[in-house]
Amino acid sequence: MVTVDTDKKSMVIEGLILAREWEALVTILKKMPVVEVVDIIKELPQKDLDIVLSHFTTEEQGYIVEDFDIDMQTDLFERLGPKDFAPVFVHMASDVRADLYQELDREDQLRLLPYLDKKTRENVVRLSAYEPETAGGIMSTDFATIIGDMTVSQAIQKVRSDAPSKKMIYYVYVVDKDMKLHGFTTLKDLIMADPDSSIWDIVYKDFTYAEVNEDREAVAAKIEKYDLVAIPVINKYGQLAGIVQHDDAIEVIQAEQTEDMEKFMGIVPDVDGLNYTETTVLGHFRKRVSWVASLAVIGLISGMIIHAYEEALSVLIILALYMPMVADSGGNVGSQAATVVIRAIALGEITVKNWFAILFKEARISILLSVVLGMIAFGKILFLSWETDVPAQFNLLYIAFGISMALSLQVISATMIGAALPLIVKRLGGDPAVAASPAITTIVDITGLLIYFGVATLMFF
Amino acid sequence: MVTVDTDKKSMVIEGLILAREWEALVTILKKMPVVEVVDIIKELPQKDLDIVLSHFTTEEQGYIVEDFDIDMQTDLFERLGPKDFAPVFVHMASDVRADLYQELDREDQLRLLPYLDKKTRENVVRLSAYEPETAGGIMSTDFATIIGDMTVSQAIQKVRSDAPSKKMIYYVYVVDKDMKLHGFTTLKDLIMADPDSSIWDIVYKDFTYAEVNEDREAVAAKIEKYDLVAIPVINKYGQLAGIVQHDDAIEVIQAEQTEDMEKFMGIVPDVDGLNYTETTVLGHFRKRVSWVASLAVIGLISGMIIHAYEEALSVLIILALYMPMVADSGGNVGSQAATVVIRAIALGEITVKNWFAILFKEARISILLSVVLGMIAFGKILFLSWETDVPAQFNLLYIAFGISMALSLQVISATMIGAALPLIVKRLGGDPAVAASPAITTIVDITGLLIYFGVATLMFF
Repeated sequence: MVTVDTDKKSMVIEGLILAREWEALVTILKKMPVVEVVDIIKELPQKDLDIVLSHFTTEEQGYIVEDFDIDMQTDLFERLGPKDFAPVFVHMASDVRADLYQELDREDQLRLLPYLDKKTRENVVRLSAYEPETAGGIMSTDFATIIGDMTVSQAIQKVRSDAPSKKMIYYVYVVDKDMKLHGFTTLKDLIMADPDSSIWDIVYKDFTYAEVNEDREAVAAKIEKYDLVAIPVINKYGQLAGIVQHDDAIEVIQAEQTEDMEKFMGIVPDVDGLNYTETTVLGHFRKRVSWVASLAVIGLISGMIIHAYEEALSVLIILALYMPMVADSGGNVGSQAATVVIRAIALGEITVKNWFAILFKEARISILLSVVLGMIAFGKILFLSWETDVPAQFNLLYIAFGISMALSLQVISATMIGAALPLIVKRLGGDPAVAASPAITTIVDITGLLIYFGVATLMFF
Repeated sequence: MVTVDTDKKSMVIEGLILAREWEALVTILKKMPVVEVVDIIKELPQKDLDIVLSHFTTEEQGYIVEDFDIDMQTDLFERLGPKDFAPVFVHMASDVRADLYQELDREDQLRLLPYLDKKTRENVVRLSAYEPETAGGIMSTDFATIIGDMTVSQAIQKVRSDAPSKKMIYYVYVVDKDMKLHGFTTLKDLIMADPDSSIWDIVYKDFTYAEVNEDREAVAAKIEKYDLVAIPVINKYGQLAGIVQHDDAIEVIQAEQTEDMEKFMGIVPDVDGLNYTETTVLGHFRKRVSWVASLAVIGLISGMIIHAYEEALSVLIILALYMPMVADSGGNVGSQAATVVIRAIALGEITVKNWFAILFKEARISILLSVVLGMIAFGKILFLSWETDVPAQFNLLYIAFGISMALSLQVISATMIGAALPLIVKRLGGDPAVAASPAITTIVDITGLLIYFGVATLMFF
């Protein structure tokens, strides 16, 4: 039933767009959540989009443009010009507004400022001064404040009168005349409390906060840990400078996860936070080339090891055939071990302190894996090479046993390296995610070849 | 200044613990956020933990135990026994409570139930019946409801009287006598509205909701898209069954991200959502072995290709030396391409519809990468093999050119395969993350060998 309703609605909307019945369309859009309105109108040709937008009040336009991609926002600024864009800009959320302002070039910034009221102007200039990766860079100023000496009913009155312009009033911050933050209360507590009691009776003084220059990842982690709807951000004078809300925390967590995955695959994360489509071909190339090219150069070491055993390989050609198999198995199990360890560090499940327990666990896991993969390798070699000519002094069964043995040792050592590397990087103060899969592959290639030729020398020559 | 304060506090707390001044300790703990209390007391020896807990009211104990790991919760249940645990259990959040109940074995469940009041008993049994990966499995019932025919002031009165037991009252749900959901309003709107107006005047009827059997990932995505503090969950009769809150959404996003990373590395995600430490050695082994073992078996194909060219390799042994280099480069660039495409799909930045644009972009990126990596390979071969004996009819420069050419082609094809595979899996209705890095490595090993020996056959024989 629900699906039919949704389908019917989108058919009606499509019909109105085809018929260019803008006024009727806007009547329907006004009843819908803003994100859905944006989903619909961003698909319209630019000219129609401008017409539809003009049917909303400037306040509504502010809420809509707020949810546009930053490119669409700057395009709209250019089409409308600073004078017509300013009234929309004023109604956008303070954090989004500041990000857009940062995106404009210096000249456009100077063209826009004169059309803003003093309060907005100061707010925009102040917020856009913070580094994008800090609490200041993602905070908004849409919070509600009260003074501690108020009674509960006075406070509710203050919140009521502030609320139209403050989007987040579920937490109400208690400040003094100098805007110094003394605690907070919740709208729930205000409603529940005796109207004549003092705010000081219900304020939480032992609260969690962020500092303006704190890393945004740490801020998101606090919101997550304390299950907060919003966290206050204070400056060095202890004044309330802004708040970071739960939805910003989700965005930060998503962005940091993308960074972690990219780092892990040897991709340099984008500093501007551009997404796949926004990044140019040359940009993608630059993000990927540095690691793979460095690793190709480091691969010289593998090449030198192989060359050192060139003679052995030409005597016993079967050894050359199974080099890639041993290398691949090591890369796979090493990357797996690194993945689980990196993720467990990122989620705070394990710390460098219990590295011994982790490595002991990985050692036991790797022994199990080495038995299974060694047996598969043994079977594979017998199956593939049973009619291969081996020099008279060798025996295929013995060779197959030797190669599988080398592979098993490689699985154990690669797992241990994969698990240890992120711990070492973390211990040295780095981001464990840079213990990247390609790096592990390259390292275990080298150790794998040493094991392979070591075993071969011991057993065959 | 702030740091000093925090340090001073933790010193005081440590001192009180050393002096075993439990009452004074609890006085201080009672003023702190619950998560911090849990961080402190979970480090205590079990006996001391029980003493400290006993100084809190059963309601406070409920909030504290709620934040324990599930293992600590079951341990406490066993120590206290069902009779003493029940009053604590009653005060835990309904979703956490239901998860704990699911964790208990059948016998313990039956021992606990008689000590619960009828309302809690029914609530626990109902909530624990849903699958853990669905909206029902993560929802709580701590929501506030009003009837549409109330006035605003009646509604505020109702919320006030419900609030002590309802943790989330920022959204207030409008239902009829059969609990059918008709819309919602916010505490902010209630405070702002004229007290005598009807709820129908301020209700949002066009709201976003989840269904009880909906996948939890889809629910988290809705909370994220619409920036919600909570989303209502309805059953098939359209009745309000529960809510999922923003902090649950963050947990789901984190868990799904771990799953994606694990899948991508060929690790089978844990169905019970156990973390690294909770999973046993055998559990870790099982999660990792299936993919690597399957890939080792599929590796038979690579083995067969290599064997088919055994004669060529024994004539031109230098070809054998550079097989691993070509295979590794393909694995690296293929995994990189897959990473960015999978992540972009996960974040909804790209869809299968524009697959052509994506592949065209990746083609251009791969050409740039192939030039750089091909040149490095050419230099490497000249550097490593300048004194290698090549049979009289061959020329080292020509061989180096041929091998680098094969590597460049491998880089292009591996990038395209890495980008295409997640799109294909998505198109077939699967999770793009299973287009895992080990799978791509194995596939591009095969295509790489075909390219390598194809080029060699054309150029050298």
